[in-house]
Amino acid sequence: MDVKIAIDCMGGDHGPAVTIPAALSFLRHEPDASVILVGRPEKLDPLVRSAAAGLGARLRIEPASEVVEMDDAPAQALRSKKDSSMRRAIELVKSGDAAAAVSAGNTGALMAISRFVLKTLPGIDRPAICTVLPNMVGETYMLDLGANVDCEAEHLRQFGVMGAMLVSALAHKDRPSVGLLNIGEEDIKGNEVVKQAAELLKASGLNFYGNVEGDDIYKGTTDVVVCDGFVGNVALKTSEGLAQMLGTFLRDELSRNWIAKLGAIVAMPALRGFKRRVDHRRYNGASLLGLRGVVVKSHGSADAYAFEQALHRAAEEVRNDVIRRIKAQLGMSQEAAA
Amino acid sequence: MDVKIAIDCMGGDHGPAVTIPAALSFLRHEPDASVILVGRPEKLDPLVRSAAAGLGARLRIEPASEVVEMDDAPAQALRSKKDSSMRRAIELVKSGDAAAAVSAGNTGALMAISRFVLKTLPGIDRPAICTVLPNMVGETYMLDLGANVDCEAEHLRQFGVMGAMLVSALAHKDRPSVGLLNIGEEDIKGNEVVKQAAELLKASGLNFYGNVEGDDIYKGTTDVVVCDGFVGNVALKTSEGLAQMLGTFLRDELSRNWIAKLGAIVAMPALRGFKRRVDHRRYNGASLLGLRGVVVKSHGSADAYAFEQALHRAAEEVRNDVIRRIKAQLGMSQEAAA
Repeated sequence: MDVKIAIDCMGGDHGPAVTIPAALSFLRHEPDASVILVGRPEKLDPLVRSAAAGLGARLRIEPASEVVEMDDAPAQALRSKKDSSMRRAIELVKSGDAAAAVSAGNTGALMAISRFVLKTLPGIDRPAICTVLPNMVGETYMLDLGANVDCEAEHLRQFGVMGAMLVSALAHKDRPSVGLLNIGEEDIKGNEVVKQAAELLKASGLNFYGNVEGDDIYKGTTDVVVCDGFVGNVALKTSEGLAQMLGTFLRDELSRNWIAKLGAIVAMPALRGFKRRVDHRRYNGASLLGLRGVVVKSHGSADAYAFEQALHRAAEEVRNDVIRRIKAQLGMSQEAAA
Repeated sequence: MDVKIAIDCMGGDHGPAVTIPAALSFLRHEPDASVILVGRPEKLDPLVRSAAAGLGARLRIEPASEVVEMDDAPAQALRSKKDSSMRRAIELVKSGDAAAAVSAGNTGALMAISRFVLKTLPGIDRPAICTVLPNMVGETYMLDLGANVDCEAEHLRQFGVMGAMLVSALAHKDRPSVGLLNIGEEDIKGNEVVKQAAELLKASGLNFYGNVEGDDIYKGTTDVVVCDGFVGNVALKTSEGLAQMLGTFLRDELSRNWIAKLGAIVAMPALRGFKRRVDHRRYNGASLLGLRGVVVKSHGSADAYAFEQALHRAAEEVRNDVIRRIKAQLGMSQEAAA
């Protein structure tokens, strides 16, 4: 057994109806992994009973009586729901019983509880949320996605270190390139924070590319794109909205009349190939970086296939020792700057 | 003759090769409009000679010996290129010879020169750049797109007024809805500036919807989306990059093998309909708002069709008196807040 993942089975829009099938499929695909299913036993038991027998120690249920709701305020979830499935899952990482926690629940609460229970790594002021997006030539890792709205230059430097180490762990690249998200107008190359962050990143020992613009995220100009959480969240949500609109328009046009429908049928294999290629479910699973433990956040509306991807991501982060890499690079980065 | 437009014919990636055909097509489509073509006569003359005879006073050439290059620093373009086609075009607006100026040149220089020559409206601290984007149900007007990277709450309020009045002028809506771009996480609903801006917009007398997120831009939740220039620029460039990537992937899949190619042929009318619907050239022409004159910026790489759309936009802004509307609303807005 190599990796044990604690799963907040009650979180997300669909709860156990999604998390349990995802966990069972994950165990089938990763024969060396095991899971701890955290939540209300009366909800989880019936769903795992038939599978559990064959899995032995690879699957167990950890009871938790409460559930963090999607609209709970993070501070309230932290203070008043001490027996939530989310918190118990993170505590299993803290105690060493699990190597990672995965949840599709409330992002703010997950970040607040993770920070409180696990603490941040030495040298990290603020954890960040990092997601993976497809680009023209591969994948872009972008952070922060909303954990930090007002960042100082030093925070952006730390995001650069964390993002680069996540790429080195998951994409097995030696010196991942890091870009700093900025805007292109000549007279106003970014605000003061971004200008300072560029200086810090230049001196960081990382493979710093320099400034990138919004379109570089999808061009794949760099492996990592660093930005503050406000900008990152807007870029991500804007992308979601645009992709959804384009998908709707394409479907509209392909069902407008009988000739369009015929076209859609003949082009179906190609359209399916396109859909597979940009399927956001494949990229589900954002990493909470900078903590003393691996925590992965699934999209709240994830289906079982998408949630399983978040579980695989968590397992890969553990196997490739992303936390050790971040710690080592933080040390080197500080020496380079000194 | 209703509207006279001064055109910086030398600006943009293609200069007169694009701007002249666009101007001539514009005159054909708008029989009451006229143009002043600004630039080097030796470049412009040969391109208009055959058409000029039939147009009489609707077309004239205004000589300008210099050209603002795409990589000129705005301050330098302002100080040292006093006979540039860009500056001459804006001066024609200042003098009242033209009602609007249109340029595909360097955005930073266009903003700097417009501000210097035309000045801002009373009650406007900073001009903003406003673009139009397609959404699921119509069009979204978004500002600022990069003129202002560090905004105070009061600036965002002014952007709200300017954007709403542009919609009232161009889309003929009485009380356009205004959204403030923010992020969704529960614990961190935006930074301080955005929180304050929400209060100011509530008290502004505008039809303020409240906070919107990135995906609302394309859902069409509000007519106007207000944000600072850094965030707006990132959202716009990110959209450009994503649209380009998705288009490339779709073309790839539709040419992968003979069955995909056959599908593409049968689906061609539908795919053309889709392409038309999301054709960014239709939306070309960003408005520089808050100035004492109408200035429209075309994308630098615009072709003649796209550049002509920017000319139509400028003419519509003049006809529907966008500047008077902004002035009037600024007055009302100040009373509402008082």
